[in-house]
Amino acid sequence: MYAEVSGFYARQMRHLDEGAVAEWAKTFTMDAVFHISTRAEPMRGRAELAAGAGAAVKAIVALGEVRRHMTGMYEIEERPGGLLHVRAYTIVYATSAEGQSRVHQVCTCTDTLVRNTVEGRELQVKERHVIVDGTA
Amino acid sequence: MYAEVSGFYARQMRHLDEGAVAEWAKTFTMDAVFHISTRAEPMRGRAELAAGAGAAVKAIVALGEVRRHMTGMYEIEERPGGLLHVRAYTIVYATSAEGQSRVHQVCTCTDTLVRNTVEGRELQVKERHVIVDGTA
Amino acid sequence: MYAEVSGFYARQMRHLDEGAVAEWAKTFTMDAVFHISTRAEPMRGRAELAAGAGAAVKAIVALGEVRRHMTGMYEIEERPGGLLHVRAYTIVYATSAEGQSRVHQVCTCTDTLVRNTVEGRELQVKERHVIVDGTA
Repeated sequence: MYAEVSGFYARQMRHLDEGAVAEWAKTFTMDAVFHISTRAEPMRGRAELAAGAGAAVKAIVALGEVRRHMTGMYEIEERPGGLLHVRAYTIVYATSAEGQSRVHQVCTCTDTLVRNTVEGRELQVKERHVIVDGTA
Repeated sequence: MYAEVSGFYARQMRHLDEGAVAEWAKTFTMDAVFHISTRAEPMRGRAELAAGAGAAVKAIVALGEVRRHMTGMYEIEERPGGLLHVRAYTIVYATSAEGQSRVHQVCTCTDTLVRNTVEGRELQVKERHVIVDGTA
Repeated sequence: MYAEVSGFYARQMRHLDEGAVAEWAKTFTMDAVFHISTRAEPMRGRAELAAGAGAAVKAIVALGEVRRHMTGMYEIEERPGGLLHVRAYTIVYATSAEGQSRVHQVCTCTDTLVRNTVEGRELQVKERHVIVDGTA
Protein backbone atom coordinates (compact mmCIF):
# COMPACT_ATOMS: atom_id res chain seq x y z
CA MET A 1 0.00 0.00 0.00
CA TYR A 2 2.71 2.48 1.04
CA ALA A 3 4.81 1.70 -2.05
CA GLU A 4 1.83 2.02 -4.36
CA VAL A 5 0.68 5.32 -2.86
CA SER A 6 4.13 6.90 -2.77
CA GLY A 7 4.82 5.67 -6.31
CA PHE A 8 1.55 7.22 -7.45
CA TYR A 9 2.51 10.64 -6.06
CA ALA A 10 6.01 10.40 -7.53
CA ARG A 11 4.63 9.75 -11.01
CA GLN A 12 1.87 12.35 -10.71
CA MET A 13 4.20 15.12 -9.55
CA ARG A 14 6.84 14.22 -12.14
CA HIS A 15 4.27 14.61 -14.93
CA LEU A 16 3.50 18.11 -13.64
CA ASP A 17 7.18 19.04 -13.23
CA GLU A 18 7.90 17.85 -16.79
CA GLY A 19 4.98 19.87 -18.16
CA ALA A 20 3.11 16.70 -19.22
CA VAL A 21 -0.24 18.26 -18.38
CA ALA A 22 -2.49 15.73 -20.14
CA GLU A 23 -0.72 12.82 -18.40
CA TRP A 24 -0.98 14.67 -15.10
CA ALA A 25 -4.73 15.30 -15.55
CA LYS A 26 -5.27 11.55 -16.11
CA THR A 27 -4.11 10.89 -12.55
CA PHE A 28 -7.40 12.47 -11.42
CA THR A 29 -10.90 11.05 -11.83
CA MET A 30 -13.02 12.58 -14.60
CA ASP A 31 -15.03 14.51 -11.97
CA ALA A 32 -12.21 15.29 -9.55
CA VAL A 33 -12.41 18.38 -7.34
CA PHE A 34 -9.18 20.23 -6.47
CA HIS A 35 -9.28 22.88 -3.75
CA ILE A 36 -6.19 25.03 -3.22
CA SER A 37 -5.79 27.94 -0.81
CA THR A 38 -4.47 30.24 -3.55
CA ARG A 39 -7.75 30.08 -5.52
CA ALA A 40 -11.18 31.20 -4.34
CA GLU A 41 -12.92 28.44 -6.31
CA PRO A 42 -11.94 24.77 -6.71
CA MET A 43 -11.04 23.32 -10.11
CA ARG A 44 -13.54 20.70 -11.23
CA GLY A 45 -12.94 17.91 -13.72
CA ARG A 46 -9.97 16.95 -15.87
CA ALA A 47 -10.43 19.65 -18.52
CA GLU A 48 -10.32 22.43 -15.94
CA LEU A 49 -7.40 20.78 -14.15
CA ALA A 50 -5.43 20.44 -17.39
CA ALA A 51 -6.15 24.08 -18.31
CA GLY A 52 -5.06 25.30 -14.88
CA ALA A 53 -1.88 23.24 -14.93
CA GLY A 54 -1.16 24.25 -18.52
CA ALA A 55 -1.34 27.95 -17.62
CA ALA A 56 0.96 27.37 -14.63
CA VAL A 57 3.49 25.47 -16.74
CA LYS A 58 3.47 28.25 -19.35
CA ALA A 59 4.13 30.89 -16.68
CA ILE A 60 7.01 28.85 -15.20
CA VAL A 61 8.61 28.37 -18.62
CA ALA A 62 8.28 32.14 -19.24
CA LEU A 63 10.20 32.73 -15.99
CA GLY A 64 12.91 30.34 -17.17
CA GLU A 65 12.42 28.28 -14.02
CA VAL A 66 12.28 24.58 -13.25
CA ARG A 67 9.93 23.45 -10.47
CA ARG A 68 10.00 20.14 -8.58
CA HIS A 69 7.35 18.85 -6.20
CA MET A 70 8.68 16.64 -3.42
CA THR A 71 5.92 14.88 -1.49
CA GLY A 72 6.37 12.91 1.71
CA MET A 73 5.11 12.38 5.27
CA TYR A 74 2.29 10.13 4.07
CA GLU A 75 -0.49 9.18 6.49
CA ILE A 76 -2.61 6.63 4.67
CA GLU A 77 -5.99 5.37 5.88
CA GLU A 78 -8.33 2.94 4.17
CA ARG A 79 -11.93 4.14 4.23
CA PRO A 80 -15.21 2.36 3.41
CA GLY A 81 -16.00 1.94 -0.29
CA GLY A 82 -12.41 1.27 -1.28
CA LEU A 83 -11.35 4.89 -0.72
CA LEU A 84 -7.95 5.93 0.55
CA HIS A 85 -7.56 9.02 2.69
CA VAL A 86 -4.03 10.41 2.38
CA ARG A 87 -2.37 13.30 4.18
CA ALA A 88 1.03 14.48 2.97
CA TYR A 89 3.38 17.43 2.82
CA THR A 90 4.65 18.72 -0.52
CA ILE A 91 7.61 21.06 -0.84
CA VAL A 92 7.88 22.89 -4.17
CA TYR A 93 11.42 23.83 -5.20
CA ALA A 94 12.27 26.35 -7.91
CA THR A 95 15.53 26.71 -9.79
CA SER A 96 16.17 29.83 -11.85
CA ALA A 97 17.79 29.89 -15.28
CA GLU A 98 20.98 31.06 -13.50
CA GLY A 99 20.96 27.87 -11.42
CA GLN A 100 19.82 29.32 -8.06
CA SER A 101 17.55 26.91 -6.18
CA ARG A 102 15.11 27.83 -3.42
CA VAL A 103 12.02 26.67 -1.56
CA HIS A 104 9.11 28.06 -3.51
CA GLN A 105 6.15 26.78 -1.50
CA VAL A 106 5.36 24.52 1.45
CA CYS A 107 2.03 22.72 1.11
CA THR A 108 -0.11 20.31 3.06
CA CYS A 109 -2.23 18.02 0.96
CA THR A 110 -5.30 16.02 2.01
CA ASP A 111 -6.53 13.66 -0.70
CA THR A 112 -9.22 11.11 -1.33
CA LEU A 113 -7.92 8.46 -3.72
CA VAL A 114 -9.97 5.85 -5.57
CA ARG A 115 -9.00 2.84 -7.61
CA ASN A 116 -9.87 3.26 -11.28
CA THR A 117 -12.12 0.34 -12.25
CA VAL A 118 -12.68 1.33 -15.88
CA GLU A 119 -9.32 2.14 -17.47
CA GLY A 120 -7.16 -0.04 -15.22
CA ARG A 121 -6.58 -0.57 -11.52
CA GLU A 122 -4.43 2.47 -10.90
CA LEU A 123 -5.04 5.01 -8.17
CA GLN A 124 -6.63 8.35 -9.01
CA VAL A 125 -7.33 11.50 -7.03
CA LYS A 126 -11.04 12.09 -6.50
CA GLU A 127 -10.72 15.07 -4.18
CA ARG A 128 -7.71 17.16 -3.17
CA HIS A 129 -7.37 19.93 -0.61
CA VAL A 130 -4.08 21.84 -0.70
CA ILE A 131 -3.07 24.52 1.78
CA VAL A 132 -0.12 26.60 0.67
CA ASP A 133 1.53 27.90 3.84
CA GLY A 134 1.35 31.67 4.08
CA THR A 135 -1.82 31.97 1.97
CA ALA A 136 -4.56 30.52 4.16
CA MET B 1 7.78 -2.07 8.99
CA TYR B 2 8.81 0.80 6.68
CA ALA B 3 5.20 1.97 6.29
CA GLU B 4 4.58 1.84 10.02
CA VAL B 5 7.76 3.71 10.89
CA SER B 6 7.33 6.40 8.24
CA GLY B 7 3.66 6.79 9.19
CA PHE B 8 4.67 7.19 12.82
CA TYR B 9 7.06 10.05 12.01
CA ALA B 10 4.49 11.70 9.72
CA ARG B 11 1.90 11.76 12.49
CA GLN B 12 4.37 12.80 15.19
CA MET B 13 5.77 15.71 13.19
CA ARG B 14 2.31 16.84 12.08
CA HIS B 15 1.19 17.08 15.72
CA LEU B 16 4.16 19.35 16.41
CA ASP B 17 3.59 21.45 13.30
CA GLU B 18 -0.08 21.90 14.21
CA GLY B 19 0.83 22.93 17.77
CA ALA B 20 -0.84 19.82 19.25
CA VAL B 21 1.78 19.57 21.95
CA ALA B 22 -0.01 17.08 24.23
CA GLU B 23 -0.64 14.72 21.29
CA TRP B 24 2.98 15.12 20.25
CA ALA B 25 4.26 14.31 23.75
CA LYS B 26 2.23 11.08 23.75
CA THR B 27 4.37 9.78 20.86
CA PHE B 28 7.21 9.47 23.40
CA THR B 29 7.46 7.02 26.30
CA MET B 30 6.73 8.41 29.75
CA ASP B 31 10.47 8.40 30.54
CA ALA B 32 11.78 9.39 27.09
CA VAL B 33 15.10 11.23 26.77
CA PHE B 34 15.51 13.79 23.98
CA HIS B 35 18.99 15.13 23.24
CA ILE B 36 19.30 18.02 20.78
CA SER B 37 22.48 19.87 19.82
CA THR B 38 20.89 23.27 20.54
CA ARG B 39 20.43 22.48 24.25
CA ALA B 40 23.14 21.70 26.80
CA GLU B 41 20.89 19.28 28.68
CA PRO B 42 18.47 16.67 27.34
CA MET B 43 14.73 16.92 27.96
CA ARG B 44 13.48 14.04 30.11
CA GLY B 45 9.93 12.72 30.30
CA ARG B 46 6.68 13.77 28.69
CA ALA B 47 6.00 16.79 30.91
CA GLU B 48 9.36 18.35 30.08
CA LEU B 49 8.95 17.51 26.40
CA ALA B 50 5.49 19.06 26.28
CA ALA B 51 6.73 22.20 28.06
CA GLY B 52 9.68 22.55 25.67
CA ALA B 53 7.51 22.06 22.60
CA GLY B 54 4.85 24.39 23.97
CA ALA B 55 7.39 27.18 24.42
CA ALA B 56 8.70 26.61 20.88
CA VAL B 57 5.17 26.67 19.41
CA LYS B 58 4.40 29.92 21.27
CA ALA B 59 7.57 31.56 19.91
CA ILE B 60 6.75 30.46 16.34
CA VAL B 61 3.19 31.80 16.61
CA ALA B 62 4.60 35.11 17.94
CA LEU B 63 6.80 35.31 14.82
CA GLY B 64 3.73 34.71 12.65
CA GLU B 65 5.45 31.72 11.07
CA VAL B 66 4.37 28.23 10.07
CA ARG B 67 6.91 25.43 10.45
CA ARG B 68 6.84 22.00 8.80
CA HIS B 69 9.08 19.05 9.62
CA MET B 70 9.79 16.77 6.66
CA THR B 71 11.50 13.53 7.68
CA GLY B 72 12.97 10.95 5.32
CA MET B 73 16.03 8.84 4.53
CA TYR B 74 15.01 6.19 7.05
CA GLU B 75 17.51 3.49 8.00
CA ILE B 76 15.61 1.05 10.20
CA GLU B 77 17.21 -1.76 12.20
CA GLU B 78 15.53 -4.20 14.55
CA ARG B 79 17.45 -4.61 17.80
CA PRO B 80 17.14 -7.17 20.62
CA GLY B 81 14.25 -6.64 23.03
CA GLY B 82 11.84 -5.45 20.36
CA LEU B 83 13.61 -2.11 19.91
CA LEU B 84 13.90 -0.29 16.63
CA HIS B 85 16.94 1.82 15.83
CA VAL B 86 16.08 4.50 13.27
CA ARG B 87 18.31 7.04 11.58
CA ALA B 88 16.67 9.78 9.53
CA TYR B 89 17.08 13.30 8.19
CA THR B 90 14.55 16.01 9.04
CA ILE B 91 14.34 19.29 7.17
CA VAL B 92 12.45 22.06 8.95
CA TYR B 93 10.78 24.61 6.66
CA ALA B 94 9.50 28.00 7.80
CA THR B 95 6.97 30.21 6.04
CA SER B 96 6.56 33.81 7.14
CA ALA B 97 3.25 35.63 7.48
CA GLU B 98 4.10 37.31 4.15
CA GLY B 99 4.26 33.89 2.48
CA GLN B 100 8.05 33.57 2.08
CA SER B 101 9.23 29.99 2.58
CA ARG B 102 12.77 28.91 3.44
CA VAL B 103 14.83 26.08 4.90
CA HIS B 104 14.98 26.77 8.61
CA GLN B 105 17.07 23.83 9.86
CA VAL B 106 18.64 20.61 8.61
CA CYS B 107 18.71 17.86 11.24
CA THR B 108 19.91 14.31 11.60
CA CYS B 109 17.90 12.21 13.98
CA THR B 110 18.90 8.92 15.66
CA ASP B 111 16.05 7.31 17.57
CA THR B 112 15.31 4.26 19.65
CA LEU B 113 11.67 3.30 19.22
CA VAL B 114 9.70 0.87 21.36
CA ARG B 115 6.28 -0.66 20.97
CA ASN B 116 3.84 0.55 23.62
CA THR B 117 2.51 -2.53 25.41
CA VAL B 118 0.26 -0.72 27.89
CA GLU B 119 -1.87 1.82 26.02
CA GLY B 120 -1.87 0.08 22.62
CA ARG B 121 0.62 -1.36 20.17
CA GLU B 122 1.80 1.91 18.66
CA LEU B 123 5.42 2.93 18.32
CA GLN B 124 6.90 5.46 20.74
CA VAL B 125 10.24 7.22 20.97
CA LYS B 126 12.28 6.09 23.96
CA GLU B 127 15.45 8.01 23.12
CA ARG B 128 16.16 10.66 20.49
CA HIS B 129 19.42 12.32 19.48
CA VAL B 130 19.06 15.30 17.12
CA ILE B 131 21.95 17.17 15.56
CA VAL B 132 20.97 20.49 14.03
CA ASP B 133 23.53 21.21 11.33
CA GLY B 134 25.60 24.30 12.11
CA THR B 135 25.18 23.99 15.89
CA ALA B 136 27.28 20.96 16.82
CA MET C 1 11.21 -3.72 -2.45
CA TYR C 2 10.34 -0.10 -1.61
CA ALA C 3 11.87 -0.38 1.87
CA GLU C 4 15.04 -1.97 0.52
CA VAL C 5 15.47 0.60 -2.23
CA SER C 6 14.79 3.62 -0.02
CA GLY C 7 17.05 2.19 2.70
CA PHE C 8 19.79 1.74 0.12
CA TYR C 9 19.63 5.40 -0.92
CA ALA C 10 19.50 6.56 2.70
CA ARG C 11 22.68 4.66 3.53
CA GLN C 12 24.46 5.64 0.31
CA MET C 13 23.74 9.35 0.70
CA ARG C 14 24.63 9.32 4.41
CA HIS C 15 28.06 7.89 3.60
CA LEU C 16 28.64 10.77 1.19
CA ASP C 17 27.34 13.39 3.64
CA GLU C 18 29.61 12.01 6.37
CA GLY C 19 32.61 12.08 4.04
CA ALA C 20 32.93 8.27 4.11
CA VAL C 21 34.06 8.19 0.50
CA ALA C 22 35.33 4.60 0.39
CA GLU C 23 32.08 3.29 1.92
CA TRP C 24 30.14 5.41 -0.55
CA ALA C 25 32.10 4.08 -3.53
CA LYS C 26 31.30 0.49 -2.48
CA THR C 27 27.59 1.19 -3.10
CA PHE C 28 28.46 1.20 -6.82
CA THR C 29 29.52 -1.75 -8.95
CA MET C 30 33.23 -1.99 -9.77
CA ASP C 31 32.51 -0.78 -13.33
CA ALA C 32 29.73 1.74 -12.53
CA VAL C 33 29.16 4.73 -14.82
CA PHE C 34 27.99 8.01 -13.26
CA HIS C 35 26.77 10.79 -15.56
CA ILE C 36 26.06 14.19 -14.04
CA SER C 37 25.02 17.34 -15.87
CA THR C 38 27.78 19.41 -14.21
CA ARG C 39 30.57 17.32 -15.81
CA ALA C 40 31.27 16.90 -19.53
CA GLU C 41 32.44 13.30 -19.03
CA PRO C 42 30.99 10.55 -16.83
CA MET C 43 32.96 9.07 -13.95
CA ARG C 44 33.76 5.39 -14.53
CA GLY C 45 34.56 2.78 -11.88
CA ARG C 46 34.93 2.93 -8.13
CA ALA C 47 38.39 4.51 -8.06
CA GLU C 48 37.28 7.46 -10.18
CA LEU C 49 34.05 7.80 -8.17
CA ALA C 50 35.95 7.79 -4.87
CA ALA C 51 38.42 10.38 -6.20
CA GLY C 52 35.61 12.63 -7.42
CA ALA C 53 33.68 12.37 -4.18
CA GLY C 54 36.85 12.86 -2.14
CA ALA C 55 37.63 16.12 -3.95
CA ALA C 56 34.04 17.31 -3.41
CA VAL C 57 34.15 16.47 0.30
CA LYS C 58 37.47 18.32 0.67
CA ALA C 59 36.03 21.44 -1.00
CA ILE C 60 32.92 21.35 1.24
CA VAL C 61 35.05 21.00 4.38
CA ALA C 62 37.17 23.95 3.19
CA LEU C 63 33.98 26.03 2.91
CA GLY C 64 33.05 25.01 6.47
CA GLU C 65 29.73 23.65 5.19
CA VAL C 66 27.68 20.56 5.90
CA ARG C 67 25.74 19.04 3.01
CA ARG C 68 22.81 16.61 3.21
CA HIS C 69 21.25 14.70 0.32
CA MET C 70 17.54 14.01 0.75
CA THR C 71 16.21 11.57 -1.85
CA GLY C 72 12.57 10.72 -2.44
CA MET C 73 9.82 10.38 -5.04
CA TYR C 74 10.96 6.87 -5.96
CA GLU C 75 9.53 5.22 -9.08
CA ILE C 76 10.83 1.66 -9.04
CA GLU C 77 10.52 -0.77 -11.95
CA GLU C 78 11.86 -4.30 -12.16
CA ARG C 79 13.58 -4.98 -15.47
CA PRO C 80 14.74 -8.23 -17.11
CA GLY C 81 17.99 -9.71 -15.78
CA GLY C 82 17.27 -8.75 -12.18
CA LEU C 83 17.85 -5.04 -12.80
CA LEU C 84 15.97 -2.28 -11.04
CA HIS C 85 15.23 0.98 -12.82
CA VAL C 86 14.77 3.79 -10.29
CA ARG C 87 13.80 7.41 -10.81
CA ALA C 88 14.05 9.79 -7.87
CA TYR C 89 14.50 13.40 -6.85
CA THR C 90 17.37 14.45 -4.61
CA ILE C 91 17.51 17.79 -2.85
CA VAL C 92 20.94 18.83 -1.59
CA TYR C 93 20.91 21.12 1.46
CA ALA C 94 23.89 23.14 2.66
CA THR C 95 24.44 24.62 6.10
CA SER C 96 27.19 27.19 6.62
CA ALA C 97 29.53 27.31 9.61
CA GLU C 98 27.34 30.19 10.88
CA GLY C 99 24.32 27.86 10.89
CA GLN C 100 22.49 29.23 7.84
CA SER C 101 20.74 26.47 5.86
CA ARG C 102 19.65 26.65 2.23
CA VAL C 103 18.75 24.56 -0.80
CA HIS C 104 22.00 23.98 -2.62
CA GLN C 105 20.85 21.88 -5.58
CA VAL C 106 17.74 20.16 -6.92
CA CYS C 107 18.52 16.96 -8.84
CA THR C 108 16.69 14.27 -10.74
CA CYS C 109 18.33 10.89 -10.63
CA THR C 110 17.77 7.92 -12.96
CA ASP C 111 19.56 4.76 -11.84
CA THR C 112 20.06 1.19 -12.84
CA LEU C 113 20.56 -0.95 -9.74
CA VAL C 114 21.82 -4.53 -9.61
CA ARG C 115 22.02 -7.05 -6.84
CA ASN C 116 25.59 -7.83 -5.82
CA THR C 117 26.05 -11.60 -6.21
CA VAL C 118 29.72 -11.75 -5.18
CA GLU C 119 30.18 -9.78 -1.95
CA GLY C 120 26.63 -10.17 -0.62
CA ARG C 121 23.09 -9.61 -1.80
CA GLU C 122 23.00 -5.85 -1.40
CA LEU C 123 21.92 -3.43 -4.08
CA GLN C 124 24.53 -1.48 -6.04
CA VAL C 125 24.35 1.28 -8.62
CA LYS C 126 25.47 0.13 -12.05
CA GLU C 127 24.57 3.30 -13.93
CA ARG C 128 23.46 6.73 -12.70
CA HIS C 129 22.27 9.77 -14.61
CA VAL C 130 21.91 12.96 -12.56
CA ILE C 131 20.50 16.22 -13.87
CA VAL C 132 21.21 19.19 -11.60
CA ASP C 133 18.44 21.71 -12.29
CA GLY C 134 19.79 24.91 -13.82
CA THR C 135 22.84 23.24 -15.39
CA ALA C 136 21.43 21.13 -18.25
